[in-house]
Amino acid sequence: MTNLNRQFRLAARPVGRFSESDFELVESRLAGPNDGQFLAKITHLSIDPAMRAWMDAGHATPVEVGDVMRAIAIGRVTKSRHAEFGEGDFVRGMFGVQEFVVSDGAQVSKINSEEGASLAAHLGVLGNPGMVAYFGLLDVGRLADDDVVLVSGAAGAVGSVVGKIAKIKGATAIGVAGGPEKCGMLVDELGFDGAVDYKRGNLSTELSENTPRGVDVFFDNVGGEILNQGLARLNHGARVVVCGAISRYDSEEAAGPSNYTQLLYKSASMIGAPASDFTQRFPEAIAQMSTWLAGGQLTSVEDTVAGDIEMFPTMLRRLFSGANRGKSVLELGR
Amino acid sequence: MTNLNRQFRLAARPVGRFSESDFELVESRLAGPNDGQFLAKITHLSIDPAMRAWMDAGHATPVEVGDVMRAIAIGRVTKSRHAEFGEGDFVRGMFGVQEFVVSDGAQVSKINSEEGASLAAHLGVLGNPGMVAYFGLLDVGRLADDDVVLVSGAAGAVGSVVGKIAKIKGATAIGVAGGPEKCGMLVDELGFDGAVDYKRGNLSTELSENTPRGVDVFFDNVGGEILNQGLARLNHGARVVVCGAISRYDSEEAAGPSNYTQLLYKSASMIGAPASDFTQRFPEAIAQMSTWLAGGQLTSVEDTVAGDIEMFPTMLRRLFSGANRGKSVLELGR
Repeated sequence: MTNLNRQFRLAARPVGRFSESDFELVESRLAGPNDGQFLAKITHLSIDPAMRAWMDAGHATPVEVGDVMRAIAIGRVTKSRHAEFGEGDFVRGMFGVQEFVVSDGAQVSKINSEEGASLAAHLGVLGNPGMVAYFGLLDVGRLADDDVVLVSGAAGAVGSVVGKIAKIKGATAIGVAGGPEKCGMLVDELGFDGAVDYKRGNLSTELSENTPRGVDVFFDNVGGEILNQGLARLNHGARVVVCGAISRYDSEEAAGPSNYTQLLYKSASMIGAPASDFTQRFPEAIAQMSTWLAGGQLTSVEDTVAGDIEMFPTMLRRLFSGANRGKSVLELGR
Repeated sequence: MTNLNRQFRLAARPVGRFSESDFELVESRLAGPNDGQFLAKITHLSIDPAMRAWMDAGHATPVEVGDVMRAIAIGRVTKSRHAEFGEGDFVRGMFGVQEFVVSDGAQVSKINSEEGASLAAHLGVLGNPGMVAYFGLLDVGRLADDDVVLVSGAAGAVGSVVGKIAKIKGATAIGVAGGPEKCGMLVDELGFDGAVDYKRGNLSTELSENTPRGVDVFFDNVGGEILNQGLARLNHGARVVVCGAISRYDSEEAAGPSNYTQLLYKSASMIGAPASDFTQRFPEAIAQMSTWLAGGQLTSVEDTVAGDIEMFPTMLRRLFSGANRGKSVLELGR
């Protein structure tokens, strides 16, 4: 039995800003499942900033030209010859940008839909962005109760969760985002203590005004001038959590943070925090985050667009134009 | 009683490269000592890269224009009205660039000349550079036995000690220095496993060739392109010890390390390591380093020039032209 499958493959490595022509939509027949495999129909594609980094040859494990574009996704099992996955199960894995996937179950997790969270939440607050936020802030950032936390990309999938966890822990949360709408959302809907609109003008002055006690944990998703100016606000012993660099991924400009010498002056550290370092402890984090979600302390900020797989390049572009709020998800065939 | 004293004061803040006219040599009469003070004649002035950083308004605690230029120095007590310091004692402190100092003994340490080390060594391997190297490599850098250590500014006061301690601990030490002479010294005299001449051409290629197993601890004294290229060689979990940035201090160019995203890809960290974080533990380090010195495992690489205080600006310039080997000291009135 074969299924008609459409998938986006990487057609070319972009230099700087990616374009639609860097992807190729390919239609093919998908065989399987064989013994020990299942077939799933993709229902939710996770649209992540890291996708742009995966397209670059300089990434640690880039997507190869000609391969299916890498993506975390949720699917529903439609046929199974695998002992642990049954028809109707919702599963999450690195399934790629396609409509169907055949998998042997490696690195695939079953989603317990009885937890009450939306499927999109399993790609966001209970998925990779949530894990990055949880371990990045608490373990890598070593958050203390009365810390001042500065978060860039604060209206995004990771940043919004970082701010919420900071508040749950009794810390002060200041967000950096683009535009008055996003900044309003941070303060009015998510309970941040302050928001800095990096598009408005004097970033340095606004950061100073919003962090009169300095910054103890700077959780950076953006890089560029925001990282540089945030470094200027560090307190003694501060931790800079390097989570992402969305300002750089889709750009040829790649200036580094000239203020990095602040690390020396402030006995501070800058620490790379990929979620993959903490996979063993994901269950602990998911349990805690689920409790917070159920109790209303944590919010799943979702930006789900229902549509067709052809919308993938447009959805990815939206991330880099800053159009999304919270977790960006392309829901297929609703 | 008064002494004729000559001192260099900061006359102007340089923009970029400093010049002699940024200092002013002032002659004045020095009163004292009063009760609880001692008078010392400066015998050894420590010439340090940090001096250039202290001249900048952007430093955490800059020298103010009009003030005596900050310097660590060794002096001999010539008259004392202080209970703990007697005539003839050698003392070390932040005495400034001058010929005489009156001090109340705060932050001053007495030098035990029976330890057998030279007085210059008390400004180098047993002084601040040695403490920075010891705690930076072992505590901040968390050196493990089979680590590969990359050291920039390896022929300098700090870098040479970092390489020696790495070798004592059984690690692999690769140094970066300018010119074949310095690189030869690293390998032939100090026992480094390899040396990369950053002046010779392709830094990236030479770094790769010299670190086939990657880099676990990168001890950076230099910044700029050397920091950037070193980041590209990090292993998973590597530590980058930010000790200094001599390539930036005397320059208007202040590009940051664009490769800092390697921290994210390699779960690595970049940590500011001022010696001041470890002052409580200096005695432990000094005891250990003294033992290593006495046993011949550690070498005090000294670059002592005997002369007059008027030579100070020239001596400072030599640091930035890369002329010195090991600890640069201006010995006064030998």
